[in-house]
Amino acid sequence: MKNLRLLESARERRDHIAHELSVELKTIGDAYYDDEKMTHCENLIGATSVPLGIAGPLALRSDSLESQFYIPLATTEGALVGSVSRGCKAITESGGAIAYTHRVGTTRGPVFYVENLENNKKLRTWLRENEQALAKIPEPTSPFISYLKMEVSGTSDHVFVNFYYNTHDAMGMNMATIATQRIVDYIERETGFKNIAVAGNFDSDKKPSWGNFVRGRGFQVWAEARLKKDVVSSVLKSSPEKIYDVWLSKCMLGSALAGSLGFNAHFANIVAAFYIATGQDPAHVVEGSMGVTSAKILPDGDLYTAIYMPAVMIATVGGGTNLKTQTEAQNIIGVKKSDQLAEVLGGAVLAGEISLLSALAEGTLTKAHESLGR
Amino acid sequence: MKNLRLLESARERRDHIAHELSVELKTIGDAYYDDEKMTHCENLIGATSVPLGIAGPLALRSDSLESQFYIPLATTEGALVGSVSRGCKAITESGGAIAYTHRVGTTRGPVFYVENLENNKKLRTWLRENEQALAKIPEPTSPFISYLKMEVSGTSDHVFVNFYYNTHDAMGMNMATIATQRIVDYIERETGFKNIAVAGNFDSDKKPSWGNFVRGRGFQVWAEARLKKDVVSSVLKSSPEKIYDVWLSKCMLGSALAGSLGFNAHFANIVAAFYIATGQDPAHVVEGSMGVTSAKILPDGDLYTAIYMPAVMIATVGGGTNLKTQTEAQNIIGVKKSDQLAEVLGGAVLAGEISLLSALAEGTLTKAHESLGR
Amino acid sequence: MKNLRLLESARERRDHIAHELSVELKTIGDAYYDDEKMTHCENLIGATSVPLGIAGPLALRSDSLESQFYIPLATTEGALVGSVSRGCKAITESGGAIAYTHRVGTTRGPVFYVENLENNKKLRTWLRENEQALAKIPEPTSPFISYLKMEVSGTSDHVFVNFYYNTHDAMGMNMATIATQRIVDYIERETGFKNIAVAGNFDSDKKPSWGNFVRGRGFQVWAEARLKKDVVSSVLKSSPEKIYDVWLSKCMLGSALAGSLGFNAHFANIVAAFYIATGQDPAHVVEGSMGVTSAKILPDGDLYTAIYMPAVMIATVGGGTNLKTQTEAQNIIGVKKSDQLAEVLGGAVLAGEISLLSALAEGTLTKAHESLGR
Amino acid sequence: MKNLRLLESARERRDHIAHELSVELKTIGDAYYDDEKMTHCENLIGATSVPLGIAGPLALRSDSLESQFYIPLATTEGALVGSVSRGCKAITESGGAIAYTHRVGTTRGPVFYVENLENNKKLRTWLRENEQALAKIPEPTSPFISYLKMEVSGTSDHVFVNFYYNTHDAMGMNMATIATQRIVDYIERETGFKNIAVAGNFDSDKKPSWGNFVRGRGFQVWAEARLKKDVVSSVLKSSPEKIYDVWLSKCMLGSALAGSLGFNAHFANIVAAFYIATGQDPAHVVEGSMGVTSAKILPDGDLYTAIYMPAVMIATVGGGTNLKTQTEAQNIIGVKKSDQLAEVLGGAVLAGEISLLSALAEGTLTKAHESLGR
Repeated sequence: MKNLRLLESARERRDHIAHELSVELKTIGDAYYDDEKMTHCENLIGATSVPLGIAGPLALRSDSLESQFYIPLATTEGALVGSVSRGCKAITESGGAIAYTHRVGTTRGPVFYVENLENNKKLRTWLRENEQALAKIPEPTSPFISYLKMEVSGTSDHVFVNFYYNTHDAMGMNMATIATQRIVDYIERETGFKNIAVAGNFDSDKKPSWGNFVRGRGFQVWAEARLKKDVVSSVLKSSPEKIYDVWLSKCMLGSALAGSLGFNAHFANIVAAFYIATGQDPAHVVEGSMGVTSAKILPDGDLYTAIYMPAVMIATVGGGTNLKTQTEAQNIIGVKKSDQLAEVLGGAVLAGEISLLSALAEGTLTKAHESLGR
Repeated sequence: MKNLRLLESARERRDHIAHELSVELKTIGDAYYDDEKMTHCENLIGATSVPLGIAGPLALRSDSLESQFYIPLATTEGALVGSVSRGCKAITESGGAIAYTHRVGTTRGPVFYVENLENNKKLRTWLRENEQALAKIPEPTSPFISYLKMEVSGTSDHVFVNFYYNTHDAMGMNMATIATQRIVDYIERETGFKNIAVAGNFDSDKKPSWGNFVRGRGFQVWAEARLKKDVVSSVLKSSPEKIYDVWLSKCMLGSALAGSLGFNAHFANIVAAFYIATGQDPAHVVEGSMGVTSAKILPDGDLYTAIYMPAVMIATVGGGTNLKTQTEAQNIIGVKKSDQLAEVLGGAVLAGEISLLSALAEGTLTKAHESLGR
Repeated sequence: MKNLRLLESARERRDHIAHELSVELKTIGDAYYDDEKMTHCENLIGATSVPLGIAGPLALRSDSLESQFYIPLATTEGALVGSVSRGCKAITESGGAIAYTHRVGTTRGPVFYVENLENNKKLRTWLRENEQALAKIPEPTSPFISYLKMEVSGTSDHVFVNFYYNTHDAMGMNMATIATQRIVDYIERETGFKNIAVAGNFDSDKKPSWGNFVRGRGFQVWAEARLKKDVVSSVLKSSPEKIYDVWLSKCMLGSALAGSLGFNAHFANIVAAFYIATGQDPAHVVEGSMGVTSAKILPDGDLYTAIYMPAVMIATVGGGTNLKTQTEAQNIIGVKKSDQLAEVLGGAVLAGEISLLSALAEGTLTKAHESLGR
Repeated sequence: MKNLRLLESARERRDHIAHELSVELKTIGDAYYDDEKMTHCENLIGATSVPLGIAGPLALRSDSLESQFYIPLATTEGALVGSVSRGCKAITESGGAIAYTHRVGTTRGPVFYVENLENNKKLRTWLRENEQALAKIPEPTSPFISYLKMEVSGTSDHVFVNFYYNTHDAMGMNMATIATQRIVDYIERETGFKNIAVAGNFDSDKKPSWGNFVRGRGFQVWAEARLKKDVVSSVLKSSPEKIYDVWLSKCMLGSALAGSLGFNAHFANIVAAFYIATGQDPAHVVEGSMGVTSAKILPDGDLYTAIYMPAVMIATVGGGTNLKTQTEAQNIIGVKKSDQLAEVLGGAVLAGEISLLSALAEGTLTKAHESLGR
C-alpha cells in the first residue's frame, strides 16, 4: 500500500485507492466541493455526503435575538428531523422558546510533574502570584482569544491547571492549545517545573466528564418553553400528565439508576445532526450529550419544559464552519455569534426532547421507527 | 414560514428556503447524490459535504481478519487524519495490531410503573418465569434480530428492564425498539402492569453512562500493539518512557481528577470521523468516547499499547451505511460483518491514541495545530 | 516512642501512652468491656464510647418478618435519632412500611496480568469452561460461604474477575478474601497467569462506585410506605405536595447537577448510626450512602415514599456483631438473619428520609439543629 | 411500645426496653460515661463500645507541625490497626511523611424555585450584586463561622447556590445550616423567590459526588512519603516494583473499570476508624472515601507514595469531639486545629495505603485476614 501523503491531490489519491482495492469511489469524489487548500483534512480523497433536512420553524428569543428559525440537521437517522419539527411546532404554537447562554470558556489543561508536595505548593503559589502575567500571554497568539481564568488541581506530585479562554465566535481549541503552549513554555522557563503534556485530560476535551458537567465548558445553555395544554394535545397527541410521567421515570429515575451524565431523552441526536450540518467538531457531541431535561405541570395545566446543557462547544467561524455546505447551513440559521448559535441549538434540543418524550408517552416511538427508520 | 412537509422534493424545499431567507443553498443541493426515497431524512433539502481523508495503511488482525487497511475518516479537524496515519505507521512497522470484539448486544430498556413493592416482586418473578416466551417475540419482527438476555432494576414502584439483542450486522436500534415494543405490549397484556415508556434511559442510548461502561453495550472492543523501541523513535519521534509518562498523567490521573468516563486521549475524534465516513449514527460517538487506553514499557524496552472500548454501536448494513459515499467508504475497508468493522475501528482508535500521546510527549501537538489546524 | 505490639495488654499500652504523652486515658479504659482475646483490634488500649439512642417504634413487614421495631442508632449528631423517630411514627401511624431484599452477594475481585489479548481470551475462555471447578473451591474454606457467580472485565493485558459469594448471615469480606485467594492460587497453578492482587478494586470494597450501584453488592434493599395525608400533616407538620417538591428538587435535580451517587437526603446518617450500633463495618457506610429515594403523590392525596439501596453490606454474625454492646443492640432489633437486618435498616433509612424531607419542606431543619445540635 | 421521649433518663429508657423485649442491656448502660445534658443523642439509652487501638508512631510534618504521632483507631475490623502501624513504621523509618491541607470550606447548598429563565437570570444577577451583603449575614450567628464564597448552578426554573464557609476548628455543618437559613430568609424577603429547601443536595453532604471530588469540600488533604528501597523490603516485605504494579492495576485500572470515585485501596477503613475515635461524624466517611493514591518508582529505586483526599470534613471542637473518650483520643494526637488533625489523618491514610498495597503485592492480605480477622 502506498504512502498517500506522497500523492498531491484528492483525485490522485482516490484513483490510487480505487485502483489498488478495485472499488468504486466516484460519489466520494463528486460530493466534494471545497477548495483543497482550505480544507483541514489530510490525505483528502473527496467527501462524505450526509443528508440534510430542515426542522422548524422554531420561534425563539434570547437577550440578543428574536426570530423564527429553520434548523438544519444533517442525519441518516429516520424520524429525527420529523420529530424535532414536531417539537418546534408545539413550541412555536405555544408562543415560542426562550434561551440563555453563559460563556464558561474553552479550556486547555496542562499537567506538570513537580516531584513532591513542597514543589506542588511552590507552583500553586507561583501560579497565583503570576496569574496577571500569564493572562497576557494569549493575546499576541491571536486577536480572537483572551484569558478568562484558571483552576488548579492535582495529586501530590502532579499539578493540573485548567485554563479558560474566551475565543469569541470560534470554538477555539486550536487557539487554546497554542496559547496554552506559550503559557506552559513560560511556566517551564520561570519555574523549572516540567510540563508532561499540554493537555492532561483535566480539561476534558471530548471525553464525558463530571468535571465539565459541574463546572461547565464552552457555553452553558438553557432553553425553556411553556407548552399550552391544547397544543400538547393537538400537536404532540399527548397530555402534560403523561409526558411528565415519562420524563420523571426516564430522565430522572432511569438516568440515576444507569449512572448517566445525560438526564435527558436524546440531546446527542440533535447535537450531532446540528453540529455536522453547521461545521462543528462532531466529537464535541460528547460534551453536548450531557445535561438535564426538566418538566413541570403548571397550576393552569400547561406543561413547562426546559433543557440545561452544561458544555456546548460551538462556533460560527473557524474549523468546519468555513466549508461551503456548512456555511450555507449557518446562513439558513442566520446568526453571526457563537452564543446565538448555541441558543438556537438549545431551542432545537428542547424541541427534540419535547417530541421524543411525547412519542414515548403515547407509545408512538415505535411506529415512527417502523415507518421512517428502516 | 412554510410547513416544509407540504413540499414534495428536496429541490422544492431548498428553493423555497433559499428564496424566503435570501440565501444561497447551491452546494447543499449539489452535494446530495442519494435516492430521496432511500434516504431516511425528513424535509430533505440536500446534503452536508464532510471532507474525507484516508489514514493508514494499518496492519490489523483478529480472529476473522488479517490485512492492511486504509481507514476512511470524514472530518473538518486538521491534523486528525495525519495523526491517525502516523499511528498506523508506527503500528504497522512494529508488526501490526491485534483486535478482539465481544458482542454484548443492542439494548432497549423499557420502564414499568408498578405502584408498590408487592407488584415489583410480582413483575420480577413473572419476567424470570416467562423469559422463554419473551425471547421468542423478537423473531417475527425481523430476520436480523434475536434475543440475548435481560437485566432488571428499579426503585420500589418503577421496574426497569434492559433487553439485549443480537442484531447481527445492523446497529439495530430500530429493530430493538420495535421488538421491545412487542415484548412490552405482551407484558402489559399478560400482567396488567403499565408501561410508561419503551425507552426508560436504563439502556442508555446516546447518553454517557457508567451502566453502559461497566456492562458494555453493542460491542466491547479491544486492540493492542507492541511498538518497537526504534519505531517509537523513528516514526513517533519519542521514547517509550516519555509516552508512558504522558499516558499515566493524562489518561489515568487527569481522567480520575476530572471525573471522566474517558480514560483516553481522544477516542471520540476517531470514532466521530470513522462513524460519519461509514454511515454510522454519529450520536453514538457518545458511547464510543468511553473507555481506557493502556500503556506499559516491556522488559525489552518496547512499548505495549492497548485500547478498550466498552460500548461500540456499529453496523455494516442499515441506516446510513446504505448511502452512496458511506457504502464506498465501507468498501475501502472491505469487511462485511459488524464485528469486523468494530475491530478495524479499534485499530484506528489505537493508532490515534499512540500518535496523540507521542505528540504530547514531544510537545509537538501545538505545532501540528499551528500548521494544519487553522 | 515505643513499639506498642511489644506490650501485652490494653492496660499496659494505655498506661504507657498516658505516661509518655502526659494525657488522661481513663474513660477509654473504662469504656471497654469485651474480652481482649475476642476483640479484633491490634494494639488495643480500650474503647470509644458512642452514645446510643433508640428511634421508633417502626412497624415493618417483609416476606419473613412483621413486627414493630426499636431502632438502635449510635451517634454524636444531634437531631438524628429524633428525626428518625418522627419518620418511624409517620410510617407506623400510616400502617407500616414494607421492605424487600435481594442478595447479590459479597464480592472479591482479583486482577491478573496476562500480557496480551491472546492470553486475555485464553483466560476468559478458561474461566468460563472451568467455572464449575472454581465454584467448589470456597466450600472447604468455611461452612458459611458458597459460590454464586463471577463477572469478567478488563483491559487488553489485565483481566479483572469479580467473584460473588453467599456468606449467609456474615458480612463475609474475610471469608470472601480467603476463598478468593484459594481460587486465585488454583487459577495461577492451572493457567500460569499471574495474579497481581487478590483485590483489584473491581469489587469495589469501601469505595463509592457506579459498578456497585448498577450491579448491586451485598444486599439490594427496597422499602416503601404509603403515608396518609393527615399523618403527614399531624406528625410531619407538612403536606404531600411540599414534600414532593423538596424531593424532586433535592433528590433528583440537585443530585444530578452534583454528579452524585446518592439520590437521597441522608442515607449515610442512618446507615452509619445503625452500623456502629449493631457492629457492622462502618467503612461500608460508603456503599450504604448510594441509592435513590422516591416520592409520589397518589390519586387519593396520600404520599407514597420509598427507598432503594443497591449495596448494603450487613451481618448478624461475625466481625463486630459479637461484641457485647453490639450484641445487645442486635437483640433490641431481635432478628437473626442478615437479610432481615437489612430490611430493618431499609425501614429505618426510609424513616430518616421522610423526616428530613419534611423538615426541609417546612424549614424546620435549622430549628432542629439549633436546639439539638449545638 | 412506648414513646421513649416521654421517659426522662437513659436509665429509664434502657430499663423500659430491656423489660419490654426481655433483653439484657447492661453493657450498653455501663459503656456510657458522658453527661446526658452534653450528649447530642435523643432517646439515649447508653453507649456502643467500639474497641480502640493505636497505630504508629508516625513521623509527620506539615507547615505547622512536626512530630511523631500515635494514631487512635476505633475499629472492629481485624488487621486494620496492625496494617496502619506497619505503614507508619515504613514511613517513619524512611524519614517521615509530609502533609498539606487546603481549606475549601464547609458547604450548604439551598435550592430556589424561580419558575422560569427570566427569573433565573434575575436571581443570579441579584446574588452576584448582593454577595457582599450576604457575606455579612453568617457573622452574628456564631463567632466561629465566616463566609468564603458561593457557586451557582441550576436548571431553567431551579437555582442551586452552594455557600462555602470557614468554620475554623469545628466541622461546621450545624453552623453552616443555621447561617445559610438566615441567608435564605434574607434572599426570600428581598427577591420574593421561593426557597424549596435549605439543603438541595448540590452541597452534597454525606453523598458521594463528583461535584465534591472536583471542587473539594471541607479540607483537601495531600500526604506523601518517600519510602527507602530497603525499608520497603525489611518492613513491607515487598519491593517498589511489585507495589507499583499493584497500585497501577488496582488504584488506576480497576477503579476506572468500576466507575469508582475512590482511586485508592481503602481510605474509608482508616477514615472510619479515625473518625469514630476522635468524635467526627462517621457519615462523613463517605466524603473521606474519595480520592487518589499515587505511586512512582524514583530514579534511585526508592518508592514515592502519596494520597490526595479532596473532601475531608473534620473537627477538633464541637459535635462528638467533646465526649470523653473522643477527647482523650484527640489528646493522644495532641493537635488543636482542624487542619492539623486533617494532616494527621492524611498521614494515617497514607500509611494504610502503603501497607495494604504491600500486603496485596506479597499475597499476604489473606493471611492477615486469616489470623487476625476471624
